[in-house]
Amino acid sequence: MSIEHLLSDGIKATPPSFVRGILKAASDPGVISFAGGLPNPISFPQEELFESMERIVKTYGSNVFQYSVTAGLPELRQYIADRYNRVFGLNLTIDHILITTGSQQALDLIGKVLLDKGDGVIVEKPTYLAAIQAFSMHQPVFYPVELTEEGMDPEQLVDALQNPVKFIYAIPDFQNPTGLTYSARNRERICEILKDRDVVLVEDDPYGELRFDGERLPYIGAGKLPNSILLGTFSKIITPGMRTGFLISENKELLRYISIAKEASDLHTNIFSQYLLWDYLANNDLEAHIAKIKALYQKQAQVMMDAMDRYFPSTVKYTKPHGGMFLWVTLPEGVSAMSLFPKALERKVAFVPGDPFYIGIKNANTMRLNYTNADCETIEEGIRRLGDLLKAL
Amino acid sequence: MSIEHLLSDGIKATPPSFVRGILKAASDPGVISFAGGLPNPISFPQEELFESMERIVKTYGSNVFQYSVTAGLPELRQYIADRYNRVFGLNLTIDHILITTGSQQALDLIGKVLLDKGDGVIVEKPTYLAAIQAFSMHQPVFYPVELTEEGMDPEQLVDALQNPVKFIYAIPDFQNPTGLTYSARNRERICEILKDRDVVLVEDDPYGELRFDGERLPYIGAGKLPNSILLGTFSKIITPGMRTGFLISENKELLRYISIAKEASDLHTNIFSQYLLWDYLANNDLEAHIAKIKALYQKQAQVMMDAMDRYFPSTVKYTKPHGGMFLWVTLPEGVSAMSLFPKALERKVAFVPGDPFYIGIKNANTMRLNYTNADCETIEEGIRRLGDLLKAL
Repeated sequence: MSIEHLLSDGIKATPPSFVRGILKAASDPGVISFAGGLPNPISFPQEELFESMERIVKTYGSNVFQYSVTAGLPELRQYIADRYNRVFGLNLTIDHILITTGSQQALDLIGKVLLDKGDGVIVEKPTYLAAIQAFSMHQPVFYPVELTEEGMDPEQLVDALQNPVKFIYAIPDFQNPTGLTYSARNRERICEILKDRDVVLVEDDPYGELRFDGERLPYIGAGKLPNSILLGTFSKIITPGMRTGFLISENKELLRYISIAKEASDLHTNIFSQYLLWDYLANNDLEAHIAKIKALYQKQAQVMMDAMDRYFPSTVKYTKPHGGMFLWVTLPEGVSAMSLFPKALERKVAFVPGDPFYIGIKNANTMRLNYTNADCETIEEGIRRLGDLLKAL
Repeated sequence: MSIEHLLSDGIKATPPSFVRGILKAASDPGVISFAGGLPNPISFPQEELFESMERIVKTYGSNVFQYSVTAGLPELRQYIADRYNRVFGLNLTIDHILITTGSQQALDLIGKVLLDKGDGVIVEKPTYLAAIQAFSMHQPVFYPVELTEEGMDPEQLVDALQNPVKFIYAIPDFQNPTGLTYSARNRERICEILKDRDVVLVEDDPYGELRFDGERLPYIGAGKLPNSILLGTFSKIITPGMRTGFLISENKELLRYISIAKEASDLHTNIFSQYLLWDYLANNDLEAHIAKIKALYQKQAQVMMDAMDRYFPSTVKYTKPHGGMFLWVTLPEGVSAMSLFPKALERKVAFVPGDPFYIGIKNANTMRLNYTNADCETIEEGIRRLGDLLKAL
């Protein structure tokens, strides 16, 4: 007998991840996959991490294996506070920081703490598919706001705020899926719009450290809007497999509720990994490590763009990222990237069609391409295969 | 301005954990704490784990640091299937197993997949406080069923099943908080009661491997009830700090929904830790390791019981555990363990009062004592202090 009738409305409203759904197809060694969001293994400092393992087991013994506190390792939280204070002129202490089991958990916790069925959430159009997934569990109403080359459209944002909205979810740097970055002016404008509103701003920044073109820009809300939340992660600069991210908020009341939700979700994040990351950060030159990752990604992004110029029909447009891991391709009007997907797989190349990044849009003429996890020749060859397919349309 | 009005009804219905709330007080080095549920560090095979770290980094390289699949490492899932098949005669394959970020995450996922506001959950009276916490997020109605020396009271269970219940949550071995174990007869009786009912049985078994007295008993539902879920963990036998547990269900439809909830919650569990545990298990004698833990816990439990016989007034009763980490003390009628708690802290000894293990009961005359994380002299001294307090009542 089916268990359908025992299921919650929440899980029935939660779409399975398209990306995770195609992992199997995309992991066929013959397939060139631009579908995932995998960092290049160059970003895992394996030898240094192993040295840190040796050091922490020797130095901290059973502490690295025992249960620990929900907030996270104080030393790691102090490192994060110091870094953000130094780079962005914030005034953070460890009490503003909660270690999370990857940024994905932060999205889960924010949904739990803020959303009842029918509450409003403003998201970018398009937005990160796993954020849609995490929030959908609570059956909110999504209000998508168009993402332009400058960032969220301010007028559409003001309109969307007419609705009973609990929070705004934004990825201002090298956005997933589009690769777009909010301009300084747009950030100020959004901050101005939100200043006296009773709403939480969630800034998700997994890729900010990976800017290979231009200078980092100030956050929209961090240090300015009292109800703002900033998300960060070690996934793109050290290791994603250890699922260690962090949530920053200067609103301690909000953070206290988020901590209760975390307690109930997994007690605390893997403490071995927290010691490991902290020891690695304390004993190595993170900037030099990040510089290597950025140089590689800049080159790979350029190779992908050059190949698209060479192999794609001129009717196909794409965004030019200043950092991060993705770019966004717009096909001619009326062409469904979703319908293209199985044909691409036949030609042994994979991407993520635009649909899962939108709320309620089907057969979008857009697709996300990842350029970080294939070498330059493979990127070139994959784009050539995709170009053949696009030219045959 | 308070953010109270932005909070979800779910988080407002979720109690903070009493145990985590007193962690700070209980971690004062002068305080003898029977409050936590910390395994003894003897259960962390530190040297062997470090050898495994060296081996997996060398053998699997970037795979141990990269993103991975939601279901968990196939090799680890195969180990779990094989072990349960061997010990309990089940017929599990890796497709029946989902790796979770500790058993706490399993509780979170089960709540997400099965509970809408107002749905019924049958729990033991008393039950594990963090399960109450995880389920409360979904605002269910709890139907507590009295826990006797034999297990859940079958008649009360039948009565409770008259309500619109989604699942039953039970801890049949060395229950948390009481230390009680369901008898073989009671298990069969419950299985019989549930056989043709449209309800999920969740058997949480974090302590089953730690039986120091008698033989392991068959599960209530695993292998018998098609809608049953079995939870396990490596926290009590290898390391809790790595937050690695597992959820077993032969109902693949149910497991598929739970996997979607997991995807949305943290993508996947720390893959380094999964490789590490699997390598440790493949290269070491787990039974010999568990035997050491059991011998220690048996001794410590005995020391605590002997000390209670010596120092507690005869009006105070306690359960005699056959394994696990806790025992349960019943004070004379009308004595509130919660009121006793601050007085105990003054005498530098901590326990968990009964209240947070019940639904809506205040000033219960019960308390949970943990005997695994203090040496025998410390246990003796802590019980003496507690005895002085009880005699002064």
